[in-house]
Amino acid sequence: MKQMRIILSILFLLTFAVSQAQHPIAFFNNADIVAVKSGINKYPLLTQSFNSVKAEVDAYLGKSVDVPFPKDPAGGYTHDRHKNNYMLMFNSGVLYNITGKVAYATLVKEMLLKYAVLNPTLKNHPQATSASPGHLFWQALNDANWMVYSGLAYDLIYNSLTPTERTTIEDGAFKPEVDFVTKDLKTWFDLLHNHAVWACAGVGIIGIATNNNDYVEMALKGSDKNGKSGFIAQMNHLFSPDGYYTEGPYYVRYAILPYILFANALNNTQPGLQIFKHRNNILQKALLTCLQQTNLDGTFFPLNDDIKDKNYTTNELVTAIDIAWKAYGPNEGLLTVAKKQNRVILHRGGADIAAAIATRKNIPNYFPYKTIESTDGINGDEGGVSVLRVGKNDDLTSMVFKYTAQGMGHGHFDKLNINLFDKGNEILQDYGSARFIGIEQKYGGRYLPENTSYASQTIAHNTLVVDEESHFKGDSKLGEAYHSEKLFSSINNPNIQYTLAAENNAYPGVAMKRGIYVIVLPNAKKIVVDLFNVNASATHQYDLPFQYKGQFISTNYKYTANTKKQETLGTKAGYQFLWKVASAQVKDTVAQFTFLNKQSYYTVSSLIKGDATILFTNTGANDPNFNIRTEPSMIIRKSGSNECFVNVVEIHGNYDPVNEFSSNSYSSVSAINLLENNQDYTAVAITIAGKKLQLIQSNKDFSTTATHQIKNNQINIKWVGPYTVLYDGKSF
Amino acid sequence: MKQMRIILSILFLLTFAVSQAQHPIAFFNNADIVAVKSGINKYPLLTQSFNSVKAEVDAYLGKSVDVPFPKDPAGGYTHDRHKNNYMLMFNSGVLYNITGKVAYATLVKEMLLKYAVLNPTLKNHPQATSASPGHLFWQALNDANWMVYSGLAYDLIYNSLTPTERTTIEDGAFKPEVDFVTKDLKTWFDLLHNHAVWACAGVGIIGIATNNNDYVEMALKGSDKNGKSGFIAQMNHLFSPDGYYTEGPYYVRYAILPYILFANALNNTQPGLQIFKHRNNILQKALLTCLQQTNLDGTFFPLNDDIKDKNYTTNELVTAIDIAWKAYGPNEGLLTVAKKQNRVILHRGGADIAAAIATRKNIPNYFPYKTIESTDGINGDEGGVSVLRVGKNDDLTSMVFKYTAQGMGHGHFDKLNINLFDKGNEILQDYGSARFIGIEQKYGGRYLPENTSYASQTIAHNTLVVDEESHFKGDSKLGEAYHSEKLFSSINNPNIQYTLAAENNAYPGVAMKRGIYVIVLPNAKKIVVDLFNVNASATHQYDLPFQYKGQFISTNYKYTANTKKQETLGTKAGYQFLWKVASAQVKDTVAQFTFLNKQSYYTVSSLIKGDATILFTNTGANDPNFNIRTEPSMIIRKSGSNECFVNVVEIHGNYDPVNEFSSNSYSSVSAINLLENNQDYTAVAITIAGKKLQLIQSNKDFSTTATHQIKNNQINIKWVGPYTVLYDGKSF
Repeated sequence: MKQMRIILSILFLLTFAVSQAQHPIAFFNNADIVAVKSGINKYPLLTQSFNSVKAEVDAYLGKSVDVPFPKDPAGGYTHDRHKNNYMLMFNSGVLYNITGKVAYATLVKEMLLKYAVLNPTLKNHPQATSASPGHLFWQALNDANWMVYSGLAYDLIYNSLTPTERTTIEDGAFKPEVDFVTKDLKTWFDLLHNHAVWACAGVGIIGIATNNNDYVEMALKGSDKNGKSGFIAQMNHLFSPDGYYTEGPYYVRYAILPYILFANALNNTQPGLQIFKHRNNILQKALLTCLQQTNLDGTFFPLNDDIKDKNYTTNELVTAIDIAWKAYGPNEGLLTVAKKQNRVILHRGGADIAAAIATRKNIPNYFPYKTIESTDGINGDEGGVSVLRVGKNDDLTSMVFKYTAQGMGHGHFDKLNINLFDKGNEILQDYGSARFIGIEQKYGGRYLPENTSYASQTIAHNTLVVDEESHFKGDSKLGEAYHSEKLFSSINNPNIQYTLAAENNAYPGVAMKRGIYVIVLPNAKKIVVDLFNVNASATHQYDLPFQYKGQFISTNYKYTANTKKQETLGTKAGYQFLWKVASAQVKDTVAQFTFLNKQSYYTVSSLIKGDATILFTNTGANDPNFNIRTEPSMIIRKSGSNECFVNVVEIHGNYDPVNEFSSNSYSSVSAINLLENNQDYTAVAITIAGKKLQLIQSNKDFSTTATHQIKNNQINIKWVGPYTVLYDGKSF
Repeated sequence: MKQMRIILSILFLLTFAVSQAQHPIAFFNNADIVAVKSGINKYPLLTQSFNSVKAEVDAYLGKSVDVPFPKDPAGGYTHDRHKNNYMLMFNSGVLYNITGKVAYATLVKEMLLKYAVLNPTLKNHPQATSASPGHLFWQALNDANWMVYSGLAYDLIYNSLTPTERTTIEDGAFKPEVDFVTKDLKTWFDLLHNHAVWACAGVGIIGIATNNNDYVEMALKGSDKNGKSGFIAQMNHLFSPDGYYTEGPYYVRYAILPYILFANALNNTQPGLQIFKHRNNILQKALLTCLQQTNLDGTFFPLNDDIKDKNYTTNELVTAIDIAWKAYGPNEGLLTVAKKQNRVILHRGGADIAAAIATRKNIPNYFPYKTIESTDGINGDEGGVSVLRVGKNDDLTSMVFKYTAQGMGHGHFDKLNINLFDKGNEILQDYGSARFIGIEQKYGGRYLPENTSYASQTIAHNTLVVDEESHFKGDSKLGEAYHSEKLFSSINNPNIQYTLAAENNAYPGVAMKRGIYVIVLPNAKKIVVDLFNVNASATHQYDLPFQYKGQFISTNYKYTANTKKQETLGTKAGYQFLWKVASAQVKDTVAQFTFLNKQSYYTVSSLIKGDATILFTNTGANDPNFNIRTEPSMIIRKSGSNECFVNVVEIHGNYDPVNEFSSNSYSSVSAINLLENNQDYTAVAITIAGKKLQLIQSNKDFSTTATHQIKNNQINIKWVGPYTVLYDGKSF
């Protein structure tokens, strides 16, 4: 018996010694720590980042930090306290390793011991409304956040703890959470979805921190360890081969954090996995793709649900960029973004970036934005999104053309949608999501009901609405079954960027095809030509909205404004949120509408064949809680079966209120003619600045070598390939 | 005969020689030129400014510049061409003196010779709609601008011209314009008004440039040379002794340019006048006062008509600051502004500023903003405006409290109006003017009809509207007869900035008195307390609007929103532009309304005694031309005779959408009690963050030594002086 105890003790001590050698390892290891330490004295950005983390943590040193019983929704006290707590523990753990000061470890330990008391007592959060309720928070996603950072924190102070303390924390603080997400929420844990990425990262990091291989296995291969779910499956399933994340850049920004933190931990513990190289560097692609999908000010393009203020200086991307720098090596674009982030994490990657910023001169002001086309879908065969760009630096023009799959629960009904950005400003906007994140008064900071009833509806976008109903009748499940398709694109001519895409399932019996041309004319004028074909056997009401941002300047047609009384434009599918501000009856004309955004004018010139109505609306109706921003739109409404909407969006002139100058406030477009439009071809001539711009596209044959000819009473032209664009008779 | 001719020739040569010695003199003289020249090689800002002017002018060198027959309104081709022309001539003249290159002089000469042909043929401009029509432009004001810069340009190339050329230009280009403004528009020329300042400066500068003392005399003393009008009278009459300009900062920005340019020319030619010292350095005071009346971003406070984008980087203020630097010596605040202007004029002052910027380190980021109270009226006895400030740098809070005279034709009906700025953002806004300057489609770039029908009406402001009628029935003439009055102010305690002002003429039989307190509580919280007393013998409808900027977050009372149909709030006095969005019936309560602006929350807590209605509105009704921006307001409506509106505007919390944090989104105000309100005193207690804030003001006796006491069932307090403010029973 006594011998047995001695043997057990020796075994235990051995284990302890091994463990001692193994930690910290999840966030960084001893070699990394040496590098960070030495950099703090050398590189201002690292010094500053260290001081700022230190100041934050020091405010709590020696104090008893509250670990309250969970009660409040997002934005409320207990929510924010627990959110603060896990970051505080993580930061304090990092500081312990850098400074060696025991007080930092003690702070973490005492908090973890409180969680060890609290967590076993928890049931579903009282404010839980989600299908995956949390324990510490209203939703399990936040519990997973807690697991990631608390796991890292534990690993960081592992060496300072006694075996008893370890057991208490592992059994009390972590096990209930791991069991909760892997058992109670097994189905959720095994989803291929960003929430589950967090859950796997949380369980995996806790596994590494607690030397629990069972946890690590579940994290990598799913709760059944069969590889059908779990982290590896998530790396294979959540991104397209190009690194596009189906929920959009706002969500990849969020999803990338657990990916990169867990990959970093795996790379430290199982280098043989070569996790960063997995699927041709998929994490690097995801990061660079999401950075390309930002506006000049660093805000993410609002594809699907998106908080429009969110930009690439967010904590998630600081972490991702710093770790990617270590994992994938230096990158010019990342350096630009890191400089704007103006902080680094206290990690080897952060230290190396701080060094690069300290020594490199002339770091470019803007991320190296370029035209980028991303496929959607695991195999890259479920449509995609094009960002067509012309111009550079602060004169960049970006056209976002979306022909993706649905994008899961956060997807909007926005097939063939376009968004235009110019000079860093939104010109044709996407509403984004209806949410005031973290503001308790606004539905507890969650997605507002108006996110579903308005923001995700088709009419809130810049794409065709048929019969006042959203794509797929606004049913995500139905939408998930389909995706749009790119038919052709050409992005090698910097003056003519062209993408043609089709959507045939959003409305039964209605085929939609949109060709978007972003053009720099030889006179340097920038225009977008939008050829939107819709074909149906029956007659429908077609609404093509332009969510313009700016001040209404003028139209070239008469309209009637509802000046004394306003009513809603419709009753459902988002129309109930629109006040009908004005309307015009137009016929066989080029209808022009000019608006002003900051210092530039924008004119939409619309070819109207036959009768059409043009509507001007403002959001605000049926919004008793003031949840929707007041935003205007111009809608072209046409009744018909086969229609071709030809619209030219022209960027022109300059308005300088400081120096009181205005130039070129009028459109240069004087005529638009549809020369041919059938199953095979669409051909358009636009008279602009007195010269003729001709655009001819093949609608069916996308061979680059095929020769085509159109010959009718308006045009006689031969060309090779899927399209041709001529200005004044010449290519450019 | 031959002798005679020789004598004439000698006389002519003598005159010529004298003239040679006298020019250039109006903009700068030879000594200044030497300083500018040497600085161009040394000081980057001067180099860059020189290069930029040179690039602009060089584009025209050797070309024939169009001097078209006037045809278009503001924003049209001929308008902009003539506007460009005078600046081009001036700049080319400056470059001629700096570089010695004859081509610059030739450019000016040829243009002036064209004007010498054109100007004698001109009658009133075809687009003239103003009472003072122009010849070259739609209004005479722009002709006066032309005179100022063309006059300077002529002086700058005087030495390069032959006597015949001089005669041609003086008689052809200048005399018709001078005769036009001094004879045809004699009444206008002799006004004491900013347009006439331009006219006098134009005539005076042409006088100096053409050695025509008659012109200079008319410019200085009016067309009758009796001193009742003209430049000196304008210096005496257009500013208050503090340098406040009755039309407001947006207009002083404009008016100061001819003042400073003509003063500069006079200082060079008649130093004995000591024009810059006139009226205790009134031009310097005007400049510094208008800079104090700007927001953190340099935009002018929108008092009266104001284009809100206009800021202190405008050309007028570059010129004014650079000349003031030479005239009045170095000034820390001017240096900050000059640095943000990022260009200087090619003048001795500009060169000296460029030198200071090149050598000085740590030029502060912000103008040295402080609390400033300016009187209005020539003698400083016609009310005024207080800018009460707390906080500093980017955390500055500025409360603009306006109790001025009418402000002439550009004045708004905004007696006792307040505007709140915080952290550089407009929180309680003034609409500014309804005008898209320079945009031809928008009423030729002129003030829109909505400037009168909406923007200048009382309901577009943050002050009391009685019976849905504007102050002085919206009649400027009537308004001109009166001014509000400051009763008392105390601005020495940085934590309690207080101004009390009264208006007794805006509505017959209605006396209004408003006390504005801008307070920093001992816990660092910033609040504004607004005690608005109104007294009348009859019963009236009182509307107190809050033109809030931001997103509606919540109210602590129930309201009814007009979700399906919207109608206008009223039919006149600006009310016809307001959609009635929602309304609430409230009674004997503290009604709280919270909104979010950028990253801060703002709550208006309103004491409601008895019954009141709270209205939420949006502009946009009766605006068929989309001339008005869509802006919200909250209006407290009360029926009564003697009422005291007690409102607390609280700045609180933080919203960080990037990092998804929200803190303190709820108001800390839990109670407001009106403890006493009569002719003598108003006493209020506000419970905020659990502690009592007491504000007691004398309404009649403003002696700083008088002792007062209020004793009733709610309060028993003794104090000395016109007011006392206590928090938790203590001064702070």
